[in-house]
Amino acid sequence: MSVKVKIVNDPVYGFIRFPEPEIMRIIDHTWFQRLRNIKQMGLAHLVYPGAVHTRFAHSLGACHLAGKALEELSTKGIRVEKEEFLAARLAALLHDIGHGPFSHSLENVLVAMPHEAISRMIMERMNREMGGMLDTALSVYSHSYPRRYLHQLVSSQLDIDRMDYLNRDSFYTGVSEGVIGYDRILQMLTVTDNELVVEEKGVHSVEKFIIARRLMYWQVYLHKTVLGAEMLLIKIFTRAKELAAQNVELFASPLLRHFLYANLTQIDFENNPEHLIKFCQLDDHDIMTSIKAWQSHSDFILSELCKMLILRKLYKVLLSSEPLARILRDKKIALGDRLKLAENELDYFVFGGITSNSTYDINNELIKIETKTGEIKNITEIDDSLVNQTLARAVHKNYICFVQD
Amino acid sequence: MSVKVKIVNDPVYGFIRFPEPEIMRIIDHTWFQRLRNIKQMGLAHLVYPGAVHTRFAHSLGACHLAGKALEELSTKGIRVEKEEFLAARLAALLHDIGHGPFSHSLENVLVAMPHEAISRMIMERMNREMGGMLDTALSVYSHSYPRRYLHQLVSSQLDIDRMDYLNRDSFYTGVSEGVIGYDRILQMLTVTDNELVVEEKGVHSVEKFIIARRLMYWQVYLHKTVLGAEMLLIKIFTRAKELAAQNVELFASPLLRHFLYANLTQIDFENNPEHLIKFCQLDDHDIMTSIKAWQSHSDFILSELCKMLILRKLYKVLLSSEPLARILRDKKIALGDRLKLAENELDYFVFGGITSNSTYDINNELIKIETKTGEIKNITEIDDSLVNQTLARAVHKNYICFVQD
Amino acid sequence: MSVKVKIVNDPVYGFIRFPEPEIMRIIDHTWFQRLRNIKQMGLAHLVYPGAVHTRFAHSLGACHLAGKALEELSTKGIRVEKEEFLAARLAALLHDIGHGPFSHSLENVLVAMPHEAISRMIMERMNREMGGMLDTALSVYSHSYPRRYLHQLVSSQLDIDRMDYLNRDSFYTGVSEGVIGYDRILQMLTVTDNELVVEEKGVHSVEKFIIARRLMYWQVYLHKTVLGAEMLLIKIFTRAKELAAQNVELFASPLLRHFLYANLTQIDFENNPEHLIKFCQLDDHDIMTSIKAWQSHSDFILSELCKMLILRKLYKVLLSSEPLARILRDKKIALGDRLKLAENELDYFVFGGITSNSTYDINNELIKIETKTGEIKNITEIDDSLVNQTLARAVHKNYICFVQD
Amino acid sequence: MSVKVKIVNDPVYGFIRFPEPEIMRIIDHTWFQRLRNIKQMGLAHLVYPGAVHTRFAHSLGACHLAGKALEELSTKGIRVEKEEFLAARLAALLHDIGHGPFSHSLENVLVAMPHEAISRMIMERMNREMGGMLDTALSVYSHSYPRRYLHQLVSSQLDIDRMDYLNRDSFYTGVSEGVIGYDRILQMLTVTDNELVVEEKGVHSVEKFIIARRLMYWQVYLHKTVLGAEMLLIKIFTRAKELAAQNVELFASPLLRHFLYANLTQIDFENNPEHLIKFCQLDDHDIMTSIKAWQSHSDFILSELCKMLILRKLYKVLLSSEPLARILRDKKIALGDRLKLAENELDYFVFGGITSNSTYDINNELIKIETKTGEIKNITEIDDSLVNQTLARAVHKNYICFVQD
Repeated sequence: MSVKVKIVNDPVYGFIRFPEPEIMRIIDHTWFQRLRNIKQMGLAHLVYPGAVHTRFAHSLGACHLAGKALEELSTKGIRVEKEEFLAARLAALLHDIGHGPFSHSLENVLVAMPHEAISRMIMERMNREMGGMLDTALSVYSHSYPRRYLHQLVSSQLDIDRMDYLNRDSFYTGVSEGVIGYDRILQMLTVTDNELVVEEKGVHSVEKFIIARRLMYWQVYLHKTVLGAEMLLIKIFTRAKELAAQNVELFASPLLRHFLYANLTQIDFENNPEHLIKFCQLDDHDIMTSIKAWQSHSDFILSELCKMLILRKLYKVLLSSEPLARILRDKKIALGDRLKLAENELDYFVFGGITSNSTYDINNELIKIETKTGEIKNITEIDDSLVNQTLARAVHKNYICFVQD
Repeated sequence: MSVKVKIVNDPVYGFIRFPEPEIMRIIDHTWFQRLRNIKQMGLAHLVYPGAVHTRFAHSLGACHLAGKALEELSTKGIRVEKEEFLAARLAALLHDIGHGPFSHSLENVLVAMPHEAISRMIMERMNREMGGMLDTALSVYSHSYPRRYLHQLVSSQLDIDRMDYLNRDSFYTGVSEGVIGYDRILQMLTVTDNELVVEEKGVHSVEKFIIARRLMYWQVYLHKTVLGAEMLLIKIFTRAKELAAQNVELFASPLLRHFLYANLTQIDFENNPEHLIKFCQLDDHDIMTSIKAWQSHSDFILSELCKMLILRKLYKVLLSSEPLARILRDKKIALGDRLKLAENELDYFVFGGITSNSTYDINNELIKIETKTGEIKNITEIDDSLVNQTLARAVHKNYICFVQD
Repeated sequence: MSVKVKIVNDPVYGFIRFPEPEIMRIIDHTWFQRLRNIKQMGLAHLVYPGAVHTRFAHSLGACHLAGKALEELSTKGIRVEKEEFLAARLAALLHDIGHGPFSHSLENVLVAMPHEAISRMIMERMNREMGGMLDTALSVYSHSYPRRYLHQLVSSQLDIDRMDYLNRDSFYTGVSEGVIGYDRILQMLTVTDNELVVEEKGVHSVEKFIIARRLMYWQVYLHKTVLGAEMLLIKIFTRAKELAAQNVELFASPLLRHFLYANLTQIDFENNPEHLIKFCQLDDHDIMTSIKAWQSHSDFILSELCKMLILRKLYKVLLSSEPLARILRDKKIALGDRLKLAENELDYFVFGGITSNSTYDINNELIKIETKTGEIKNITEIDDSLVNQTLARAVHKNYICFVQD
Repeated sequence: MSVKVKIVNDPVYGFIRFPEPEIMRIIDHTWFQRLRNIKQMGLAHLVYPGAVHTRFAHSLGACHLAGKALEELSTKGIRVEKEEFLAARLAALLHDIGHGPFSHSLENVLVAMPHEAISRMIMERMNREMGGMLDTALSVYSHSYPRRYLHQLVSSQLDIDRMDYLNRDSFYTGVSEGVIGYDRILQMLTVTDNELVVEEKGVHSVEKFIIARRLMYWQVYLHKTVLGAEMLLIKIFTRAKELAAQNVELFASPLLRHFLYANLTQIDFENNPEHLIKFCQLDDHDIMTSIKAWQSHSDFILSELCKMLILRKLYKVLLSSEPLARILRDKKIALGDRLKLAENELDYFVFGGITSNSTYDINNELIKIETKTGEIKNITEIDDSLVNQTLARAVHKNYICFVQD
């Protein structure tokens, strides 16, 4: 009864093809279809209304770029076996499979496991189900496959994941600052000693890629209103779990109910496959339906926070490289007086923290450049490179969120 | 506590501005914010995965185009009062406010009222709430305002609604066949005797617009897989309401529960404002959360249909200008034998119907062209015009949907 | 000393590759490099200032699309030999090699031969020079190759020439009416009985293609100001040749001088290769440099016409389906009184004619559709097809050009 | 007899309007029309074949952006008088009027005056001709107008000239690295103390703008093949003038002949208006027609260099931060042996030099940022700004050009 999607009309790349039956088997899988209902950018659409694209589309895009990159490498005489080609595409397709709804915000609140670990659990389970079809893909994904560049293509500081999300997020937000020359980067890739390297004449395109990512962070991903919305979501679910722990009744779909009331540890998650199976059905709809319903819950804090999200009366946010502790204290006093809440309750309406972004992480695996003379250098060592100490330093910013008077 | 959205980064038009406080008051209203959670194209994203954009974005776009059009008219010396400018933009902004979730599919199943009537009820209610702020907008919307071209701009066969959705749906689906030269059309608009007319040199752009709409119908809106998915959704809710009428328990959010069990008539809806208020909170999340939960309902038909949608094992669809009655009968017999269902139950798994599309409706208000000599003609009367009898004739196609063996 | 262009950054398609040394040998040839200096759209840039792209870029684009199309056919199991792939790409690359400067306007004035015949002469000469490298390409180009679909791909009513020029001319003029879904059309191509056919589900894309071409004709190629500019160019060279025939001295580059004073017949051209070699060096620069110089020529008619072009004081043009003979006669009388010119001289400043455009030529080889049941039909026979009698009928329009009072 | 261009379809910005009769009067002027025949990017099309756009289109684009910027400022309450609006647009329209053909390469060879000085001379002459219509525009252009931000908008390190050429050159080359968010930058502009400043939240867009310009320099404007082509053009005209100084006959249009044989000083140019009038008719066609003709000149050096350009057998170029003197010496010896040329003649076939690029010039007027607290800072002083010492330092590179063996 299944409808085979072989060619997909992607607004970012045009027609993209999935000729491999193995790829189609994954796409048709209910766990993968779930990604249709998980927004790639969480609540960022509250600021950029166009940005409602899904992890489903991003995953197809990453798979497409993995294939493109390997085709480029082939034309340069780098041997890519058919099985490796498939494995890299499968790994790209599945790299985000472990994301839950509003993952960046909720993954520590709903389940006590990082999404990368869940991705691996899911891939392993699928692999058993499919008789070892994902063996090589898993090996690539886990960095244990001998041709290391395949892993680097799928996951590194210059990988097809980042390329696709910069392309896609720019397209859907309308923020041209994130536009990258991904096709040029792909053309500049090559392999030396099993490592993915960039030809020297591609240095400028890589610089542009790194800068584009940096600008997208400050302009979109860490936009203060987006930050405030995500914090609000975390606070809502923190409160809900607090109430659930006291056995207060909360409207929820059967799936979400499970995660609200069960209070799972990572051990539980790993030992009992039932949790994973339930997790793999959870999506944005469960979350949002409950938030809507909770607007009329009897708990003042929960209902107040939910109304704020639904009516888009978000926290006011200050974001600064300067310390904000004093302002935070003043806000707490003023608001405490007005709302008559206990200290721990007040924390739902006014609080602070630190957010940070590394444009380029020098402690991570570095982007390597092959010079015209055949030397391999880190991009930071290239003469006149932009990716210098300034960029390599992580930027930390203080923030405070508070409800307005 | 509100965050004013004054400039929106729209991926289709770039930065668009909403300087009027009246417009912002509407955008900030919870009923309008609801449109963030209603997809413009319903289930079309099952075929075009990029097409997850919302009625919120479309409504902002329509409002933007209304302003653009009136600015063009002004530069041609057509007098547009400030109040009329605002009223037309408000009417454009609100023209879809009455859409419920998956409106084209569900509006007759969930509520017994067309969305246009609901739009008007909502606008009238908002108008009372806002002390008459929408008086002129309502008059424009209802075609009672003396300067008729304002209404025609907002709602006609060449209106800013169609322009925006063709632009936006092409952009998000990636179907270039729907691309229109909207900016050129806007430039060719003028007003004669209070009617919106197109200058003769704009005829080709209007033709392109009509053809683009026709192609989008056959390629996207009535794509057979999309049609099958929408039919499936209708069948799910038809079954759910059948079960609700028998007081069978169904998981649903409080909002959706109301519409499943209440069985409202149009009279109910008009007399008791409570129904409208509840309707104005319903969105895609309520629908999808229930469908996911119903996959494990004890009713075979309901759970089966819900699984089909969630797993994307949609109906197989035949679409043809030829009669399909015989094939339908054969399918019914074969499936009846296999599934052992009663005749009325079988109808959930195999059924037929007629779908149709008018590219240009000659029984409706016609698109008028002003020739170089100042004559006003219908576009069909223009020499060599494409919009001829062929196009003006509605196209009907038979379809049958059935589950595969 | 040559620089090999293997990858070209084309603004229309992105990076395009030319891996074949045979292709590079043609591109590097001085006769092909000449196309860099011949504008694709002649004088249309006087109306659409962006449209200054060259036949060089168009030829690369056509070659690229030919490769794309054949790759698609291969994925459908249609056997394409390596030699055929190369031959089709070479034929596409060279299909316009015979165009001279401002070809559509000047080909009958400067040389008494159609550009298609010149293209073949050039290809044959190159083929001899290159030891038969173009044998198969010539056979494809001349429709003598047994696999007829290769020729149809390169030259028919749905060929890669038209696809590229619609794409490219829309891009550079900014006229979105010409945008086509070329990638979708390529995907819908297949081969049956050695003929290129389109799968039925591609009908809408083909319709869009035909309509786009029609709209580009009326909006761009036959735009009345463009028509007027081209007529002016023809009149300038008609006058120049008249003067040359009287041995009046005219400033010209050695190349252009040859064609002005020689008065060649087609026989001369075919018999003496010297003419072809000179022709293959002529480009827009020779033409425009002379026109600029002729502004101060002592012949009133020549200098007047040249000033009109350089100062962009073009003819005023009327274009109509109605007869214009009476207006023409009145204009002639009025102008004759004012300018005091003889009848034959007056004809340089006021004249009329007929222009025509066939959207789809039913007397030519037809676009064929393969229905789902495997039948081959002409596109005009498809149910509900747009490409009906109206479109198939050539449209003729009368025009008159005249200088303004 | 003139055809008024009021709306232009620009592929970069869509429809752009020129409602002011003063603007149309300039556009219709023969000196402005001349820009239609001067390519914006000189010989860069030999590497990027799409990049054949003209200074005409760039000038219209700059004028358009000037208007856009001032409209933005107006919506922020900054008073812009109607006369100032017009003056800034006129200054933007005319800022490049003094460019000759292949200006960056030839301006020191053909005329002994920088194009900025010529622009001013032309504007002054036009102003007299038009009865003072350009008084304010000239004052803005010369930085003498009291509202200094008008000049900064037209000419500074963040001006509409750079914005347009980055937009346009990216579009036509297909190099996405140059894409900038110009509409966002325009929105972030404001005026404080008569100075153009950028609101702090616009810092990232300005960074992107500066980086985009840097990348375009290394990837396009100083691309080594482009550099080699421009050097070749300079060498051709250096040789031609050498020959002209010896009264050797050279084919040339009357206009070009004037500049080849006259050997004008800046004083000549300033004193005798005849030179300016001739200069204002010179365009790419004169240059290219002569180069084609000179291929068969009896001077070995001239004909050889011209053939190299026409056949695109360009110099081979090395570009490096390392010294290249030794390689240059070796090449000279080898080539001297082979070509048997005198030392000064050899210099036409092998030579070296230095090229440089400042991404951001700290010795020039700086880009100013207005912080949220109202302070005005230089962009380099902004916390975490990318525009740091690295970028502010000019980059110098050595190059050598030589013909291949």
